[in-house]
Amino acid sequence: MVGLGRMGSNMVRRLHRDGHTCVGYDVTEAAVAAIEAEGISGARTPQQLIDALAAPRNIWLMVPAALVDQTIATFAPLLDVGDTLIDGGNSWYRDDVDRSGPLKQRGIHFLDVGTSGGVFGLERGYCLMIGGDTAAVQRLAPIFDSLAPGFDAAPTRTLGREGEPDTAERGWLHCGESGAGHFVKMVHNGIEYGLMAAYAEGLNVLANANIGATDRLKDAETAPLTHPQYYQYELDLPAIAEVWRRGSVVASWLLDLTANALLADPKLEGFSGNVSDSGEGRWTVAAAIDEGVPMPV
Amino acid sequence: MVGLGRMGSNMVRRLHRDGHTCVGYDVTEAAVAAIEAEGISGARTPQQLIDALAAPRNIWLMVPAALVDQTIATFAPLLDVGDTLIDGGNSWYRDDVDRSGPLKQRGIHFLDVGTSGGVFGLERGYCLMIGGDTAAVQRLAPIFDSLAPGFDAAPTRTLGREGEPDTAERGWLHCGESGAGHFVKMVHNGIEYGLMAAYAEGLNVLANANIGATDRLKDAETAPLTHPQYYQYELDLPAIAEVWRRGSVVASWLLDLTANALLADPKLEGFSGNVSDSGEGRWTVAAAIDEGVPMPV
Amino acid sequence: MVGLGRMGSNMVRRLHRDGHTCVGYDVTEAAVAAIEAEGISGARTPQQLIDALAAPRNIWLMVPAALVDQTIATFAPLLDVGDTLIDGGNSWYRDDVDRSGPLKQRGIHFLDVGTSGGVFGLERGYCLMIGGDTAAVQRLAPIFDSLAPGFDAAPTRTLGREGEPDTAERGWLHCGESGAGHFVKMVHNGIEYGLMAAYAEGLNVLANANIGATDRLKDAETAPLTHPQYYQYELDLPAIAEVWRRGSVVASWLLDLTANALLADPKLEGFSGNVSDSGEGRWTVAAAIDEGVPMPV
Amino acid sequence: MVGLGRMGSNMVRRLHRDGHTCVGYDVTEAAVAAIEAEGISGARTPQQLIDALAAPRNIWLMVPAALVDQTIATFAPLLDVGDTLIDGGNSWYRDDVDRSGPLKQRGIHFLDVGTSGGVFGLERGYCLMIGGDTAAVQRLAPIFDSLAPGFDAAPTRTLGREGEPDTAERGWLHCGESGAGHFVKMVHNGIEYGLMAAYAEGLNVLANANIGATDRLKDAETAPLTHPQYYQYELDLPAIAEVWRRGSVVASWLLDLTANALLADPKLEGFSGNVSDSGEGRWTVAAAIDEGVPMPV
Repeated sequence: MVGLGRMGSNMVRRLHRDGHTCVGYDVTEAAVAAIEAEGISGARTPQQLIDALAAPRNIWLMVPAALVDQTIATFAPLLDVGDTLIDGGNSWYRDDVDRSGPLKQRGIHFLDVGTSGGVFGLERGYCLMIGGDTAAVQRLAPIFDSLAPGFDAAPTRTLGREGEPDTAERGWLHCGESGAGHFVKMVHNGIEYGLMAAYAEGLNVLANANIGATDRLKDAETAPLTHPQYYQYELDLPAIAEVWRRGSVVASWLLDLTANALLADPKLEGFSGNVSDSGEGRWTVAAAIDEGVPMPV
Repeated sequence: MVGLGRMGSNMVRRLHRDGHTCVGYDVTEAAVAAIEAEGISGARTPQQLIDALAAPRNIWLMVPAALVDQTIATFAPLLDVGDTLIDGGNSWYRDDVDRSGPLKQRGIHFLDVGTSGGVFGLERGYCLMIGGDTAAVQRLAPIFDSLAPGFDAAPTRTLGREGEPDTAERGWLHCGESGAGHFVKMVHNGIEYGLMAAYAEGLNVLANANIGATDRLKDAETAPLTHPQYYQYELDLPAIAEVWRRGSVVASWLLDLTANALLADPKLEGFSGNVSDSGEGRWTVAAAIDEGVPMPV
Repeated sequence: MVGLGRMGSNMVRRLHRDGHTCVGYDVTEAAVAAIEAEGISGARTPQQLIDALAAPRNIWLMVPAALVDQTIATFAPLLDVGDTLIDGGNSWYRDDVDRSGPLKQRGIHFLDVGTSGGVFGLERGYCLMIGGDTAAVQRLAPIFDSLAPGFDAAPTRTLGREGEPDTAERGWLHCGESGAGHFVKMVHNGIEYGLMAAYAEGLNVLANANIGATDRLKDAETAPLTHPQYYQYELDLPAIAEVWRRGSVVASWLLDLTANALLADPKLEGFSGNVSDSGEGRWTVAAAIDEGVPMPV
Repeated sequence: MVGLGRMGSNMVRRLHRDGHTCVGYDVTEAAVAAIEAEGISGARTPQQLIDALAAPRNIWLMVPAALVDQTIATFAPLLDVGDTLIDGGNSWYRDDVDRSGPLKQRGIHFLDVGTSGGVFGLERGYCLMIGGDTAAVQRLAPIFDSLAPGFDAAPTRTLGREGEPDTAERGWLHCGESGAGHFVKMVHNGIEYGLMAAYAEGLNVLANANIGATDRLKDAETAPLTHPQYYQYELDLPAIAEVWRRGSVVASWLLDLTANALLADPKLEGFSGNVSDSGEGRWTVAAAIDEGVPMPV
C-alpha cells in the first residue's frame, strides 16, 4: 500500500485484519509508524517496499490524483514483469487509459480501481469498481473480497438472483478494460451529486414552508406571495429526515447521513455550503456532452 | 376504511393483522367481498359503515384525489361530533387546508396523511406524514404504529438518538397543522423524482460509454467526437447497479428496485418511458417558485 | 390616465403630443403639477377626472399591481354604462380574468394591456398586448396607435407581409379575451429573462477565459484544470458586445443595452446582481407547469 | 479563397464587389466555374491558386471543420515566409491554438476567424471575430472591412461612443491571440442556442394557452389541471411575434427570423425539431465546466 492517508491506512488495516500480508509505505514517517504500531509492516523507501514483497507483487497506490503520475514514475522502474500496479485514487479515467499502454509494454499489469465508502469503509467495507486486464483482476480477487463489504451488506437480495453470489453481490466488479473502473466511479459520483441536490432542494422547500407567516418586503417592484395562508408551516426537518428512513421511497444511505447531520445541527449552521471540486461531477457532465445524452440534474 | 383499492385493502389487512377492529367499504362489491373472505368486516353502504363503528369513529378515506371531495360530502353528514375523518390519498395539501375549516366547525376532526410505501407497504409498512390537530393524532397513535414500518425498519440508529424511540423512529410523524402531512409528502415525492432522474442520467452515461466504437454520421453540420478512444466500454448495467448496493454512497431503496428491474430487463425495454403526472412533482416546483428557493433538479 | 409615475406620465405625454385630449390624475400633487406645467390637464380627485371627460370615458390605470384592485374600487362606482377601464400595469393575468366579470355585469368595458418599452417608451413607443372585448379595443385603436412604436420601428418587413400594415405591424395587438394581454406580456417577460440569462452566461465564459493564467488553489480535494493553455485570453467584453451588434445572429435590443452598460462600466461593478421579482418569471414557469410543457431555461 | 461552398462563394463575391482582387479554389469544378462566370478568377489546383497571388499572400480557408487540418497540410508547403493562412470555418478554438505554433515556426501567419451571418451575409455582411498576431490582422484590415456589415448596420450608436468608429463598430474585432476568434464565436453560438431556447419555450407556453379548453385524460394516476378557466386562449403566434418586433424588450434578429417562419408556417410543421450538433454548444458548456462558471441555460 503506497499512501497511508485516511483511505490507504484504513484499507491496509482492513486487509491486515482479514489475514493478508501487507506492507505500507508513505512519504510521511508518522503514517508509517502508525500502522507499525498496529502490527502491520512498514517501509520507509520505495525500494524497501519492493524488497519486502515476493514477486509477483501487487502495489496499490492510494495517493491524491495529482500525484499518481509521479508515484508511478517512482515505482515502475523497480517492478518486474508480472507485477501489478493498482491506481486506487480519484484519477480521471482517461489518465488510466493513457497509463496502461506503456506499463503493459513493460509487462506490468495495471488496474484502476474506483473506491466508494470513504470514512466509513474500514467498518462497512469499500465498494470497488475495477478496470484493467482480467488476469490481474482474478489474481487479486481475494484482496477485493476482503476490501469489499460482502454479500450481507445489502438489505435484501435482488429478485431473480440465486445460487452462489457473484462478485457484484459481494461488493466488487470488474467493469471492463483500463479506465472502466474509474469511468463507473466517475458516473457514480455524478449520480451522488444529483441525489444530494435533490434532497437539498426538497429540504429547502420544507425549511421555507413558513414563508407566508413572515412579512416580505412590499414594494412596487416585487409581486406579493399570492396565497400566504398555504405557507404557514414550521416543520421539524430532523424528524422528517428520520421518518423518511423507514418505509419511504426516498430511504437511502445519504438520507441516513442527512438524518445524522440534521439531528446534530438542525439548521446545518456548521456547514459552509461550499465543496471542493474533486472532478467527478465536472467529468461526468463532460462525458454526457460527448455522448450527446441529456444530464440536466 | 373507505376505498379498498390496492392501497386501502392492504392497509386494512395490515391493521387487521395487528388486532384492530376494521370495517371496509368500497363502491365495488367485489372489493368488499375480497376482504370479507379474509375475515375482515365489510360494509355495502356508507350508512352501514357508520353503523358498524362505535363513536368516536375514525373514517380513513383511501380514494383517488379527484374523488376525495365528493366522498367527504357523502360521509360528513353521517358523522357525529368527535368523529375523525382521515384523508389518506394523494391530495394537494391546499385542498386539505381548505377542507379542515368547515369540518372543524361541525366538530369533526380532520387529518391529512401522506403515505409512502406503495405496493410493498403490506409487508414493509407505510411511512406516514400527518397533518391536523394533535388530539386526533394522539387518539390514532395505535393505528399509525400498526401501519408504520416500526423502529427496526432502518438499518442503523441515527447518531445521537437514544432511549425510547419516538414516532419518527417508528415510521410516522405528526408534521403540523392541516395540510402539513400532504405538504411533506408532496416534497417527498419531488425529491423522489429528482433521485430517479439522477440515477437515470448516470445510467444513461454508462449505457452510452461505447459511443466511440460506433460510427456516427459524418457530415459538414456535425462536429465529430473528439476522443473516440475514451468511449469504448461495453458496461454491464445490471452488475453495476448490483455492486453499488453494497458499501457505495449511492445505495438506496430506489437503487434496490433499479437492480431488480435491470436484472429482469437489462435494457428496460418493457418500460414505456412515460409516467402519469400525479401532481406532486408539479406542486413541489410550484411551491419552490412561491417560496423563491432554487429547484433546478 | 390614473397614475402619473414614470410609465403613466410618459404615456400621457406621448398621447398629448399626438393630439389626444388627456387628463392626468395621481394621488401625488407634484405628479399632477408636473404634467400641467407641460400643458396637459390634471385632476386632483377621482371625481374631477371623471367630470373632465365626456362619456363614453376611457380610464387608463397605470398603477402598481398591488394597487389595481383598490383603484378599480375607487373608480368603478363613478363610471357610466359604456365607459372603459384599462388595466395597464403589471397585473397577473388571472386577476384580470376575475375582474372582468363584475365590471361587465355593470356595463363597463374592461381591457388588460401588457406594456413593454419601459423607460425608453416615450421616444420609442410602447409595444402593447391587449385582452378584452373587441368593441372596446376598436374604439381605442387611435390611442393604441399613438402609444405604439408604429410600422417603421422594425428594421425590415416580415417576409410575405404586404399591403396596409395591420395593428401587429404597427406595434399593438388584440390578443384575445380578458387576461390575454397580460398572459402574452407575462410570457414576453419570461422570454426576456431567459434571453438575459443566455447573454449573462456567455459573457461570463468570456470574462473567465483567462482562468488558465491564474493560479488556482491546489489541494488534495480539488481536481486541477486539465488544459490551462487553452484558457489564457484577456477578452475585451465591451468591444465584443459591440461587434456582435452588427451582422451577428445574437444582435438584439437587449444586446444594444448590454453594449451601453459594458462600455460605461466594463466589469458591471455598479450593478448589484440582484433584481426584484415582479412576478412574470414566476408566473410563466407556473403556467408552463400547468400546461405540462418544458421550460428549463 | 479556398472552399467555394455557400459561405466561401458569397464571401468572395462580397470581396470582389468591393474591388479586391480574389482567386477562388475548390475541389469541385462546378464551384470554380460558377464564380468565374461572375468575373472572379478561379484556380483548379492549389498550386494555381498560389501562383495567381503575389507574395505576401492571404489564403482564406472556408472548409468544413473536419477538413481544415488536411487543407492546411496541402497548402502550407506551398507558402512563403510572410504569407498568411486564415481559418474561417467552424473550428474548435483549441485546434487553432495547436495549429498556430508549427505555422509560426515556418514564418507563416495564422489567423482564426469566427464568422456569423450565414446565408444572409452576402447582403448584410459578416460579423468577424478574429484571433492571431496583430501584424497579420492589420494587414488584412481592408479585407475585414469589406466583409463586415459596417457602421450603419446597427440601429443606434452605443451611448458614450463618439468620433471615428473603431473596428468593433464596423463589425469586426481582433479578439486576442490564436484561438481567441473561435473562442468568442463559440460562446456567441452558445448564447444563440440559449436565446433560441428562450423564445421556443415561451412560444410553446403561448401555443398551449388553451389547455383548459380541451379534455385531458382523467384517470386515477393523473392530477387534474387545477384552474382550467385560466387556460382558454387561442393565441395567434405569428401576430404576437410580429408585435414584439416593435418597441418590446425581446426584439432581436432571431425574433425577426421567427416572425418570418411563423407567418409562412404558423405551426412550424415544416420543421423537423432536430438540429445537427455543430459543436459550439457542446464546447461552450465544456468551457463553462472548465472555468467553473454556471451555465444552466
